[in-house]
Amino acid sequence: MGRLGVDLYPLQSGVGLDRVETFRRFLGGSPANVAVAAARLGRRTALISRTGADPFGGYLRRELKEFGVDARWVTEVPEHPTPVTFCALFPPDDFPLTFYRRPKAPDLEIHPHELDLDAIRSARVLWTTGTGLSEEPSRTATLTALKARSGRAHTVLDLDWRPAFWPHPATARPHYTEALRHATVAVGNAEECEVATGERDPEAAARALLGLLAPGDAGTVPLAVVKRGPEGVLALAADGRRAAVPPLPVDVVNGLGAGDAFGGALVDGLLAGLPLADTLRRAGAAGALVAGRLACAPAMPDTDEIDRALATGSGTLPTEDDPW
Amino acid sequence: MGRLGVDLYPLQSGVGLDRVETFRRFLGGSPANVAVAAARLGRRTALISRTGADPFGGYLRRELKEFGVDARWVTEVPEHPTPVTFCALFPPDDFPLTFYRRPKAPDLEIHPHELDLDAIRSARVLWTTGTGLSEEPSRTATLTALKARSGRAHTVLDLDWRPAFWPHPATARPHYTEALRHATVAVGNAEECEVATGERDPEAAARALLGLLAPGDAGTVPLAVVKRGPEGVLALAADGRRAAVPPLPVDVVNGLGAGDAFGGALVDGLLAGLPLADTLRRAGAAGALVAGRLACAPAMPDTDEIDRALATGSGTLPTEDDPW
Repeated sequence: MGRLGVDLYPLQSGVGLDRVETFRRFLGGSPANVAVAAARLGRRTALISRTGADPFGGYLRRELKEFGVDARWVTEVPEHPTPVTFCALFPPDDFPLTFYRRPKAPDLEIHPHELDLDAIRSARVLWTTGTGLSEEPSRTATLTALKARSGRAHTVLDLDWRPAFWPHPATARPHYTEALRHATVAVGNAEECEVATGERDPEAAARALLGLLAPGDAGTVPLAVVKRGPEGVLALAADGRRAAVPPLPVDVVNGLGAGDAFGGALVDGLLAGLPLADTLRRAGAAGALVAGRLACAPAMPDTDEIDRALATGSGTLPTEDDPW
Repeated sequence: MGRLGVDLYPLQSGVGLDRVETFRRFLGGSPANVAVAAARLGRRTALISRTGADPFGGYLRRELKEFGVDARWVTEVPEHPTPVTFCALFPPDDFPLTFYRRPKAPDLEIHPHELDLDAIRSARVLWTTGTGLSEEPSRTATLTALKARSGRAHTVLDLDWRPAFWPHPATARPHYTEALRHATVAVGNAEECEVATGERDPEAAARALLGLLAPGDAGTVPLAVVKRGPEGVLALAADGRRAAVPPLPVDVVNGLGAGDAFGGALVDGLLAGLPLADTLRRAGAAGALVAGRLACAPAMPDTDEIDRALATGSGTLPTEDDPW
């Protein structure tokens, strides 16, 4: 549930946006990419979002369907154009974004009364994001969706902190705190954890998140996942389980979307009931595979690719052609 | 003086924006393109405009300089991003635009007190646009620039009617009327003339525009230029001169920018003191040449290309390669 837009990726790498000459357009928006990633792994997925009533919105709905994501809850907002986001590529770790989401992105116009709460309750996973909390009516809609599940497994809040969407970091924390009370899984990097909990140290942040999460229903225990970039990923579960895995090495082309690939594979591992360390390893491999490719959504790996990456110990698969 | 932004042109023709896969970025904005077109014809030009304080703004300033347009009066607006405009190509006559200029384009944040009125007064041509009248403070700034010249030759208002920038056509006319009172040259197509004067018929519209224009100084007489698309162009001068020329045939690739090429060559002809029919023929040839190319600004013809197009009777030059 949440952000959806058109991403414009440069066909020239290592230059600033002021020097990029050509762009390729892709489906974008973090939760949309997570849905695509989970669909690629064989999961039945749907997206709750909104677009402009324009050609780019039509493209996004068509693309979601082609990726196997149910788009019935992706509706049109006549007042606002579909957002576009430009990026520049400075591998391995700098991928600045320029958002065109003002005065308001359609995906922040999700109204609580439009939600299909039966579908939200019955889904085996709900994935929400911190960006969904940044403005009304999306904030209330996101909280309504989270509350409808009341701690049911698996209810995810991706902290997804984007400074550009908030007036000030301090304004975000109360909303994160409230959302986490209804989630069973929290996912974020160090900066996102600091905004949500005040803790930046991975262990302390994971514990702080666990302290905020809903107790969970019979099917699960609360889980905090802290992404540490080059240092891999750490997860703590409320029942004491703990896992930390290093990242898979990869020749990074475009780091954008790696976190969404991670999210899709995390969802897949949770649904499969894999051991925590295996889930993190597969999620990390999915992220590495996407980081090694220009595209995000079309580059999401399938199960076989994750297996091969883990078998070879590298996110750069030996026989790989990047069609983009 | 006026609009400036990044244009994203599709590298696929004949498909809607929802099917375009790749885009090339170009300098865009009608008066910016007119300045480039006039520079290409050897005229010393400068642009008064504003961009965001962002990489696309840096690109535009650099690009203007490379095209020989003085960018000293192109300043940054920290609050708003540089506008981007997407287009789709349905030759020969449908080139729909999708603007990302909200909540406000930096070029509508031109303030009257920032204008260099000495430079505006001493220029041999001032080119303004109707879009500059659509919002404050740009409206007052545009009128201030026009008034500063008080009928001095050549003071141009390009009617440049863009419905997306106005709440309703009826709100535009009083501002057009006021601006025309200080201009010596008016340029527009049938629809633009109708918005500005209520007259759609070319002869009637040209006469209505002449009735509104400033009397002009010793150097000129008021001139109304009505662009009629496939039927060519009509011009009436207040001293009774009249010229109508047919269009030059061309295999249209992208009609966008053709009007700006026309504008640049019109300026060139006015400055050279060419007979009215010659000026219109050269301007029409410049427009045809650009319509036959994907790009706008980089495709503006030089004097030799206009000569060759007129000699061959076609806007598609025989030896032409389109590098875009």
